[in-house]
Amino acid sequence: MQEVLAADFTVELLLATEAFHKENSRLTDRQRTPVEIATVAELVRAGTLESNNAAIAVVRTKENRPLVAEPGEIALVLDDIRDPGNLGTILRIADWYGVRKILCSDTTADVYNPKVISASKGSFTRVAWWYGDIQPVLKAAAGQADFAAYGAFLDGDDVHSLPFGRGGYLIMGNESNGIRPEVGQFVTKRVTIPRFGDAESLNVGIATAVLLDNWRRVLNQ
Amino acid sequence: MQEVLAADFTVELLLATEAFHKENSRLTDRQRTPVEIATVAELVRAGTLESNNAAIAVVRTKENRPLVAEPGEIALVLDDIRDPGNLGTILRIADWYGVRKILCSDTTADVYNPKVISASKGSFTRVAWWYGDIQPVLKAAAGQADFAAYGAFLDGDDVHSLPFGRGGYLIMGNESNGIRPEVGQFVTKRVTIPRFGDAESLNVGIATAVLLDNWRRVLNQ
Repeated sequence: MQEVLAADFTVELLLATEAFHKENSRLTDRQRTPVEIATVAELVRAGTLESNNAAIAVVRTKENRPLVAEPGEIALVLDDIRDPGNLGTILRIADWYGVRKILCSDTTADVYNPKVISASKGSFTRVAWWYGDIQPVLKAAAGQADFAAYGAFLDGDDVHSLPFGRGGYLIMGNESNGIRPEVGQFVTKRVTIPRFGDAESLNVGIATAVLLDNWRRVLNQ
Repeated sequence: MQEVLAADFTVELLLATEAFHKENSRLTDRQRTPVEIATVAELVRAGTLESNNAAIAVVRTKENRPLVAEPGEIALVLDDIRDPGNLGTILRIADWYGVRKILCSDTTADVYNPKVISASKGSFTRVAWWYGDIQPVLKAAAGQADFAAYGAFLDGDDVHSLPFGRGGYLIMGNESNGIRPEVGQFVTKRVTIPRFGDAESLNVGIATAVLLDNWRRVLNQ
């Protein structure tokens, strides 16, 4: 909750216990957050998460501002990631690997879904997202110099030996169907995590982490 | 389900639709599996998974045989992994990275939990597990030549530049508390996934995948 108060959310109302309010008045005073004091029982009743026992913030949803990868920056593109748990996990992974921009197709799970917020473990306060039609966005980006879009496929280049570029987009596709062809057409490099055993695939969150880990390792060398 | 029939489980009874039985009689005949024909409605009522619409197998739980990493082999040690979803995901990751042996502390989630089976996406048929007190097992292994145990900590050596050895144990700890000291004493190398952003930690399944990916990459070079 401290992460929400410290982030760039507009908090319309903070429902908090007396104790939480006292401990965090520095944060709420600075932002002139409207606060109402509540009991733990009231918070548990009002919330949707399992363990709301200190405070609940009512925040204004953010403006849906377009995001692009600046030169040398890695941005994530999610093409139809449907599972809220996967999306939350991906926010956390992006936050770990210093990826600050996530472009989501209209059909990707809603970031304000409580399961996404919960799985993100606070990382939703540190990454920016945009929802919309990703095809024209990638089309416009593809016209720029140094455009690079890495797409996760099962038949791409081995990421263990790939010379990843300085920045660009990492595109992750739907849990069952992968990247749609209309989005895949903008992929400049198909990439694959090498397999050493027999599982058919990796979960999309796991794959996102392994790909970002390989990318960051190459940049860091 | 075909993966279960093809694996080394003793199937005590297979409840299957007429259609499934016809398609897979080669597998069931070979193993002399007792089969009972059921309707889809009966299968859905009898099962605990969401989409049991073709067959349900009643399998004998496996004998709890000790497992050790042979020279040049990677084995996984799970010290108190409580979440069934995490355990299932870890089975799938182990299967992807060709890790065939998983040593679980007594307090690790039960592999026969339906959530584990479901999250493993069939990989539970291709990895072996053992449950018990992992401390004496590691103590005995530590007496062998070339013993190596890599433990995931937040303050270990950077896995992007670590010269992983040919084989050994990868120890992953509890979701909240990490590796217990009594297990950690056998770790020969503390390892860490480098962080480039601000998330406090990675999920234990994600961390397992990234560590195995780094280990396999080094061995493959």
